[in-house]
Amino acid sequence: MKHSAITFLLTIVLSSTASLPAFASSANMPNIVVILADDLGYNDVGFTGKTDIQTPNIDQLAHDGVTFNNGYVTHPYCGPSRSGMLTGRYQARFGMENNVTYAPYDPHMGLPLSETLFPEHLQKAGYKTGIVGKWHLGGALHFQPQNRGFDYFYGFLGGGHNYFPNDVAVGHPDEYWMPLVENGKPAKFDEYLTTALSRHAAQFITENAGKQPFMMYVSYNAPHTPLHATQEDMEKYRHIKDKNRQIYAAMVDSMDQGVGMIVNSLKESGEFDNTLIFFLSDNGGVYPEAWLPKFDWADNAPFRRGKVALLEGGVHVPFIAHWPKGLPQGVEFDGLVSSLDIAKTSLELANIDTSTMKLEGKNLIPYVNGKKKDSPHEALFWRFEELDHIWAIRTETHKYISQGFPVTTKNGVKDPGLEGKSLFDMVADPYEAKNIYGQDVKQQQKLAAMWNKWNKDNQQNVLQQSHHYKKSVAELYDKHFEERKQQAKDRKPYTIE
Amino acid sequence: MKHSAITFLLTIVLSSTASLPAFASSANMPNIVVILADDLGYNDVGFTGKTDIQTPNIDQLAHDGVTFNNGYVTHPYCGPSRSGMLTGRYQARFGMENNVTYAPYDPHMGLPLSETLFPEHLQKAGYKTGIVGKWHLGGALHFQPQNRGFDYFYGFLGGGHNYFPNDVAVGHPDEYWMPLVENGKPAKFDEYLTTALSRHAAQFITENAGKQPFMMYVSYNAPHTPLHATQEDMEKYRHIKDKNRQIYAAMVDSMDQGVGMIVNSLKESGEFDNTLIFFLSDNGGVYPEAWLPKFDWADNAPFRRGKVALLEGGVHVPFIAHWPKGLPQGVEFDGLVSSLDIAKTSLELANIDTSTMKLEGKNLIPYVNGKKKDSPHEALFWRFEELDHIWAIRTETHKYISQGFPVTTKNGVKDPGLEGKSLFDMVADPYEAKNIYGQDVKQQQKLAAMWNKWNKDNQQNVLQQSHHYKKSVAELYDKHFEERKQQAKDRKPYTIE
Repeated sequence: MKHSAITFLLTIVLSSTASLPAFASSANMPNIVVILADDLGYNDVGFTGKTDIQTPNIDQLAHDGVTFNNGYVTHPYCGPSRSGMLTGRYQARFGMENNVTYAPYDPHMGLPLSETLFPEHLQKAGYKTGIVGKWHLGGALHFQPQNRGFDYFYGFLGGGHNYFPNDVAVGHPDEYWMPLVENGKPAKFDEYLTTALSRHAAQFITENAGKQPFMMYVSYNAPHTPLHATQEDMEKYRHIKDKNRQIYAAMVDSMDQGVGMIVNSLKESGEFDNTLIFFLSDNGGVYPEAWLPKFDWADNAPFRRGKVALLEGGVHVPFIAHWPKGLPQGVEFDGLVSSLDIAKTSLELANIDTSTMKLEGKNLIPYVNGKKKDSPHEALFWRFEELDHIWAIRTETHKYISQGFPVTTKNGVKDPGLEGKSLFDMVADPYEAKNIYGQDVKQQQKLAAMWNKWNKDNQQNVLQQSHHYKKSVAELYDKHFEERKQQAKDRKPYTIE
Repeated sequence: MKHSAITFLLTIVLSSTASLPAFASSANMPNIVVILADDLGYNDVGFTGKTDIQTPNIDQLAHDGVTFNNGYVTHPYCGPSRSGMLTGRYQARFGMENNVTYAPYDPHMGLPLSETLFPEHLQKAGYKTGIVGKWHLGGALHFQPQNRGFDYFYGFLGGGHNYFPNDVAVGHPDEYWMPLVENGKPAKFDEYLTTALSRHAAQFITENAGKQPFMMYVSYNAPHTPLHATQEDMEKYRHIKDKNRQIYAAMVDSMDQGVGMIVNSLKESGEFDNTLIFFLSDNGGVYPEAWLPKFDWADNAPFRRGKVALLEGGVHVPFIAHWPKGLPQGVEFDGLVSSLDIAKTSLELANIDTSTMKLEGKNLIPYVNGKKKDSPHEALFWRFEELDHIWAIRTETHKYISQGFPVTTKNGVKDPGLEGKSLFDMVADPYEAKNIYGQDVKQQQKLAAMWNKWNKDNQQNVLQQSHHYKKSVAELYDKHFEERKQQAKDRKPYTIE
């Protein structure tokens, strides 16, 4: 494990607060900006990849900040991953291992109200909090951003959205068509979605700069499907033969341009130096698994597989932190880092007492600044819905994993060695090429014991996966209607006198 | 019963078709415009009332057309009444005696697909069909206007709407806040709702005039709650002391201005003479019944009670037809007329074979033009949900009724003689002042037999009333969640090895 030279000490930052204006209590607290990509391939951004997709703005943040070489998310797809990141707790702790379905009339279909999102703690501490983009954590009113700690919301309540303003509808059953919302009102939406999100994020920053610290969650749906890009962005990638890959590249490019808009708003408002920016993806890029064989436009190299897998391609993501005032520049950090750490880091920087919060992330600052020399996490853990044969644990040296679903490669043949359990030596074999299961039984037992200990505190998954849920709800409505029809049938026609 | 002089013969109209351009098959078919008010009091429009509310445009249509002195709707509130009017069949024939709840995920909550709305027949015969305003007949996609025979829709899918553009939201649980829709898209909405609806109705007419016959269903939510009016319209009614009544008056006034806009568009496009306009209300104005004692701004004089009652105040509505080319002018018609007749009349004028449609209305034209001398209906019938003690039958001479719900007057005391059954002599006592139940048992028996015969073909009500339905759905979601939680609980935490 390598640590780059620490060029900056956190204590220097903290000692300079007295000279700053604004909130007495929050002076010098950094602003927090979390930029989350959606299904971005590990190899599809310049700072982690050998890619022809141009991401100069994101790369610049990496160049001037900290790159987490071992940055992970808590789940290989959207809803649970976001739940972990926003609560700072493994989502299995509160039974949310499936995607939330947009179901505005179901008071239970959302991120459980037992949990508090970290922006709400920041809000209570005087931060102005905002989200632009994808919510995906519940459609009923009590689950919406304005009731989960956000002062500002521009975006969409469902799990994704069409990218062009014409592709919006009222009364359409598919949430991807829903009108965009801005603080509860129908929102202006007259340009490519990624640009609109970036513009509103930048505006939020400009409007709040200098008034109080702020937190902005930039929740891009890009480059998630549907594959929609502007002609202009497509032009840059004319040389890419595969049409889907070309669109995808343009979508990533547009997101990078958006990051540039956000960075500019921070610079122009004088907040850039004291803003901690995280950039990461919620999971790996799509992989042509057996059930979606044509989803083959992202590149998770050098990792195997992608979204939905517990192999590195699904959970090991491009992950950086950038904060000129508080972090070293141009540093690569090799310790185990999790999206869980974003909450803990942000709250501690805001001087919020987290001792009662049951957070499971770490404050990364002392690790990155060299005050703490070990890895932030001894191990990271994964499990999948209520199934008992999909799980993984990663330590600094090993990964023990049961992949648990059909294993095909891109050309449809078996992906060897993944039917059952696998053990990988992550030092010698960080790309999981060689399954050494059975060759180090003690290691396996040690990892199993750690995982079992972690799992003891988990709650079995409660929310149904979207297609099951929709089927259940349809059955509920059918059953209710059948009962009504039967009641009507059973009732004898009456006569009057 | 009086019939005014017939000044015009339908045959004259029909013989002049050869000289007209457009569709060979539809030449000279009249356009149909149905203007439906929502909860309009009988006394609150000039042509039926002694009111200080100014409704010059509606009054002019009455003056130049036919006023149905005995015009009825099939139900004393919205959803069932509209279902009867649009299908041309008593809504009890298809089990729809309650309001539809906006429930976009319930494939059963809407006007049953077994029924065809009469605009769909017109559409198939070459008419361009449009609706502006309130739908209220189902939120699921297959229930929406575009799938029920309408080429054009500008309005809202629920049972009502706020009147000002600011009072619109996304993700709000109350359908009154939903974005307006225009053909599936979020609609422009930047003025007082009644004006916006009128403007879009007028535009539809202008755009379709001369191209093919058209049908426009102007489904105002005015003057239904919420009580919202413009300052400008309010000014005209400064002299009205009661604030609610003042707002209501302004709402009716705005609707009348809208009728003026629609009439102007017909005149300017040269379609006025060959457009059959119906104007009516879906039920009586609100009455301060025990459960809504403050709903006291409408005036149903000279009738007793109002919305929700089967007394005349609930179902006897302002009702006119206007068609310069096909109907006499300035005529009052006393035969029993029903909103059911709109479908039958419209379809027969479009030369559509209705013999297999099980329509229950009559083509009013030969009656109004004096070709048929009797009343269009021998009797009209009502029943209420699945309850067996709320019903009514009206013949030309009598009304036999069981009101069946708590009978209070405006000041909260008992409304005498309505606890059980009532018989009224509608010739001597058209305002139902004197209950003669028991004084003409033979008449009662005759009417009961007629009602029983009618009722034999009814289907028991299937749809739940909105508040019951919402409770049921909430229970379904609760139960489903409890099951999921129990499943999660029952599942033992597993361990790995």
